[in-house]
Amino acid sequence: MSMNDLGIVKRHVERADRAAVDKLARFGVATIHEAMGRVGLMKPYMRPIYPGARTCGTAVTVLLQPGDNWMMHVAAEQLRPGDVIVAACTSDCEDGFFGELLATSFRARGGVGLVIDAGVRDVKSLTGMDFPVFSRAVNAKGTVKATLGSVNVPVVCAGALVHPGDVVVADDDGVVVVPRAIAARAADAAEAREAGEAEKRSRFAAGELGLDMYKMREALEKAGLRYID
Amino acid sequence: MSMNDLGIVKRHVERADRAAVDKLARFGVATIHEAMGRVGLMKPYMRPIYPGARTCGTAVTVLLQPGDNWMMHVAAEQLRPGDVIVAACTSDCEDGFFGELLATSFRARGGVGLVIDAGVRDVKSLTGMDFPVFSRAVNAKGTVKATLGSVNVPVVCAGALVHPGDVVVADDDGVVVVPRAIAARAADAAEAREAGEAEKRSRFAAGELGLDMYKMREALEKAGLRYID
Amino acid sequence: MSMNDLGIVKRHVERADRAAVDKLARFGVATIHEAMGRVGLMKPYMRPIYPGARTCGTAVTVLLQPGDNWMMHVAAEQLRPGDVIVAACTSDCEDGFFGELLATSFRARGGVGLVIDAGVRDVKSLTGMDFPVFSRAVNAKGTVKATLGSVNVPVVCAGALVHPGDVVVADDDGVVVVPRAIAARAADAAEAREAGEAEKRSRFAAGELGLDMYKMREALEKAGLRYID
Amino acid sequence: MSMNDLGIVKRHVERADRAAVDKLARFGVATIHEAMGRVGLMKPYMRPIYPGARTCGTAVTVLLQPGDNWMMHVAAEQLRPGDVIVAACTSDCEDGFFGELLATSFRARGGVGLVIDAGVRDVKSLTGMDFPVFSRAVNAKGTVKATLGSVNVPVVCAGALVHPGDVVVADDDGVVVVPRAIAARAADAAEAREAGEAEKRSRFAAGELGLDMYKMREALEKAGLRYID
Amino acid sequence: MSMNDLGIVKRHVERADRAAVDKLARFGVATIHEAMGRVGLMKPYMRPIYPGARTCGTAVTVLLQPGDNWMMHVAAEQLRPGDVIVAACTSDCEDGFFGELLATSFRARGGVGLVIDAGVRDVKSLTGMDFPVFSRAVNAKGTVKATLGSVNVPVVCAGALVHPGDVVVADDDGVVVVPRAIAARAADAAEAREAGEAEKRSRFAAGELGLDMYKMREALEKAGLRYID
Amino acid sequence: MSMNDLGIVKRHVERADRAAVDKLARFGVATIHEAMGRVGLMKPYMRPIYPGARTCGTAVTVLLQPGDNWMMHVAAEQLRPGDVIVAACTSDCEDGFFGELLATSFRARGGVGLVIDAGVRDVKSLTGMDFPVFSRAVNAKGTVKATLGSVNVPVVCAGALVHPGDVVVADDDGVVVVPRAIAARAADAAEAREAGEAEKRSRFAAGELGLDMYKMREALEKAGLRYID
Repeated sequence: MSMNDLGIVKRHVERADRAAVDKLARFGVATIHEAMGRVGLMKPYMRPIYPGARTCGTAVTVLLQPGDNWMMHVAAEQLRPGDVIVAACTSDCEDGFFGELLATSFRARGGVGLVIDAGVRDVKSLTGMDFPVFSRAVNAKGTVKATLGSVNVPVVCAGALVHPGDVVVADDDGVVVVPRAIAARAADAAEAREAGEAEKRSRFAAGELGLDMYKMREALEKAGLRYID
Repeated sequence: MSMNDLGIVKRHVERADRAAVDKLARFGVATIHEAMGRVGLMKPYMRPIYPGARTCGTAVTVLLQPGDNWMMHVAAEQLRPGDVIVAACTSDCEDGFFGELLATSFRARGGVGLVIDAGVRDVKSLTGMDFPVFSRAVNAKGTVKATLGSVNVPVVCAGALVHPGDVVVADDDGVVVVPRAIAARAADAAEAREAGEAEKRSRFAAGELGLDMYKMREALEKAGLRYID
Repeated sequence: MSMNDLGIVKRHVERADRAAVDKLARFGVATIHEAMGRVGLMKPYMRPIYPGARTCGTAVTVLLQPGDNWMMHVAAEQLRPGDVIVAACTSDCEDGFFGELLATSFRARGGVGLVIDAGVRDVKSLTGMDFPVFSRAVNAKGTVKATLGSVNVPVVCAGALVHPGDVVVADDDGVVVVPRAIAARAADAAEAREAGEAEKRSRFAAGELGLDMYKMREALEKAGLRYID
Repeated sequence: MSMNDLGIVKRHVERADRAAVDKLARFGVATIHEAMGRVGLMKPYMRPIYPGARTCGTAVTVLLQPGDNWMMHVAAEQLRPGDVIVAACTSDCEDGFFGELLATSFRARGGVGLVIDAGVRDVKSLTGMDFPVFSRAVNAKGTVKATLGSVNVPVVCAGALVHPGDVVVADDDGVVVVPRAIAARAADAAEAREAGEAEKRSRFAAGELGLDMYKMREALEKAGLRYID
Repeated sequence: MSMNDLGIVKRHVERADRAAVDKLARFGVATIHEAMGRVGLMKPYMRPIYPGARTCGTAVTVLLQPGDNWMMHVAAEQLRPGDVIVAACTSDCEDGFFGELLATSFRARGGVGLVIDAGVRDVKSLTGMDFPVFSRAVNAKGTVKATLGSVNVPVVCAGALVHPGDVVVADDDGVVVVPRAIAARAADAAEAREAGEAEKRSRFAAGELGLDMYKMREALEKAGLRYID
Repeated sequence: MSMNDLGIVKRHVERADRAAVDKLARFGVATIHEAMGRVGLMKPYMRPIYPGARTCGTAVTVLLQPGDNWMMHVAAEQLRPGDVIVAACTSDCEDGFFGELLATSFRARGGVGLVIDAGVRDVKSLTGMDFPVFSRAVNAKGTVKATLGSVNVPVVCAGALVHPGDVVVADDDGVVVVPRAIAARAADAAEAREAGEAEKRSRFAAGELGLDMYKMREALEKAGLRYID
């Protein structure tokens, strides 16, 4: 282990199994998060830059310096088809590290989305391209290219630990990270969970109460719930 | 008065007069807030989860514990047609306390919307259902069902005091609470205000200045306003 | 220089050259900001109240007092066709200082948009009118008309210094201020920059890397970047 | 019930029993909050303006308009010895509504502290006077005297409902509101709680674990806690 | 006027009159702010890093890039005895741009304090040195030296416009900027204001009400204030 | 690797070498952070609850659920002399998870400090005990004991990844995490860095400029810095 994760590009990344990624792509972020046991979510300030944006892919991680997007260009070369770029910053910074040109480059190299704990710009163009971006801010402020960060090191992005090769799924509800080693199991669990929800949905629609469906009345009474008039 | 408002469900709630609720439903939040004398607004961080969401109904209140949505299920049983669920939390928490299944249940029981000083999830499904939700956050993070809160006690939600049975109106401009006892008067006042606005609108559109329309010039001069070149 | 910029209306404002304004209107905020050398942006919390809102015009500035929109009416009289109202407040306040009626008045007097470091209301109507507004908040809370501010004094709005007559451009990426004296040069620089981007776009789309296009490899190596497997 | 709580001064306030107030003054905010069943706390952004500030008294409430401290002077006349001024604002505002002169006036009229969901100034003088103030901000920005609020109406202050005459206790841990009707019971409960803590303190100091003291091991095991090596 | 204020060091700065600066040093920030007519305050998030910190001097301004403190060293050379360094950043950044070594350098060159809309570190040493610092954050995170900003250009710092040579006064209540041209007048006005406060203080201490001292009763009645029991 | 890090207590933790911990205890957070190459800092919102608080020890990690401090008691049993408790929460929550009784317990079991990305209470008592606590908030709001988290799993605390057994150092400048494997090297590097600073300090104190000491003039000129009068 090094003293310093800065100035490194890891070229070989073991990516999550493609079949697992494709299966995870069928489910929503909330479902996957539940299916994994409620871990792996990024903070809720991460929002899509346009409604309906959605992505699912394998993470190529980037560690940026504040006000400096040099490493985004370094990362572009490491992309493989189906990758999502996941960018963190060494300190909080809402500059616009990313815009239409980088999106064009990322897409040309196989990138399918960006998750960045910082700002982006060119929202109109990115929306027009339907290039899914999840960020903490929109900001026209540009960046310099002067200081090294890293590519494909583990990063903490919006409170979640992401290793290169992990699966990242993002939609209107937020962003969830599925560790590579459990991607297939998480996909199966998500599928099972979704199957169970269909039945609950019809019972709720028919007016059945969660109190009865989940048999909560006894536990509530035991906890001391009092009904008064 | 009890020392503790936790662990209570009040079953009987005197709801605001239905005709008043229906009349209030015709006006915007800003109009109603003005008509009431500028009281009763929730903080502006309460936002619709999709553009154009709008609701008006009688409040069934819920006091939640952080990270725990048990009381939402208890509240479902207390809903009557035309009710809006108003949920506060004993401390700030942006977890996702509510999603598609609960929305299905609330709608089946007559609920017409949710106002929650916390987070929600399943934004895509909720938008598809056109179930109006106003919240402080969107968050895929789920909650447990372990600790008692209360239903139909007075709550402070996003800075506004809400009693069960009050009218709650929410649209793109925010959320306003109309106390049950003054619902009819507030609806009348909103109607009167809206009538007055039509005339002003045409005068403004014709180029008349507010300075003249509201006869402000003298007061401005008296306050010391200086025009310079 | 006065001790106090409050209570003043400057009637004569030298506005930026109309041709320069019209030319700037063809470019995005990010492009103009870059073309000027990365100065003049407002803070990224300034957001359009509806997607796609966009404006470009000459600034009529307003200095408001918290909770008081009296000066907005005073400003209306100072508008000339093509002006954008730029409103700052003497202290942070998210009240709704502006709504449909004022928008009607501003438009009738030639105003083409509003940039306000505070709140606004009547979002639905403003969207319907397609009157572009960029604000820090949406808030149904109204204001009084009791205390003097100023019109057409220099203001700091969302962190940017704005003189009356400067060009203000706003779109989905934020708000940028172009000082009057350099409007023509900034427009030319934006045009030049945009021309250069088209070529880059096709090269990126063809898969060329920024590393090669911008000849970064040597500088990265010199800075100490290490590739590992 | 009126449509509008603005422009009112209630002169007669039934204050909490003095003996109960004096007894509550012996306990910390956290203890009282626990003793009441965990209700009545203001949001944690309310902080003392100097370390060690502490107050306990009966509430005289003030509803302020943003940027306007007129009602503070109106409130001064309503003070009785042992009162704490509790000031809320109709919308979020961090102006400095209060400083040394008002503190001198409040103290001369019997006021023993201020709790204000807004800003204050003259921190050095207030500290020198040892006049306890709990606020959301410190701000040298002054206010005007132009618009009516109210005195001794119920207010929501930093998320807590306060009626005039309630007991307000504030220390380094925050601010808690004890409704007038339960002040004596809350004081007894706080005393009982504090008595119980002394014994726990010595057992903890002797190295006993909470796991054993509170007999948590069985419940943890039942909940599924797994110990691994 | 240039298109770009970056990359510039202005060597010759006309500083405010020394006698005026010395006189202003006798008054508090709130008093000076009032005396100037309530303009020139920085936002209240600017706080001293230790209680009792206080400074008054002529501004040497610095425009920093995010994560980069190169210009602080450039600024050190421009200091004259009695200067206060006022540092702004091209975008919000809370990195630690300043610590003990720079403080030692600034002091050796005559600097008497720092006002920075960013982060600083070495709080313990700075407190020990009694070098007054007002910042938006404390942060151990260091910065690089790679990108040009400017020295002695006008900057917007924490919402206030500062020209090099202006007087900057900071204490527990915040930071106020006195434009160079009005420094003497502002000092006189502050002196006059302070004189007036002494008399008010004794009258308040004797129990006189602001209602009577400021003759507010008639205005309040006219505004519609109602006293009820 | 498990799908779920919740409900686990790891009993055996390999702690960092004691000599390295003791050596690190001699240096400040900023020095250690620099010496490690500027990684491992927590976000700057983590602040000591009293000035001068300082701790250095080996991490026992706790993953809490919002509003629930059950795991703090579980963690107490896992403490060894010289440990610092590092507590993260599955979602942002500022409740008071910790107070005097737990501090007494932690100290009795050998704990030397607490770092918690949440709230704490009993500030006065904790200060009196000189038990160092670094938190994001102070809050009298108590918590329940109902839902499982984990002890001694890797956690992300205030943006930093912490493994059990890592060294955690906290002082007035913030909190830094030193991975166990590099603790000795980091301590050596900090020592070397501190040695170098003494010489710089005297040179700065003698008036030498950083421009000369660090030989920046050429690089600044090359970057295009212009001196004007």
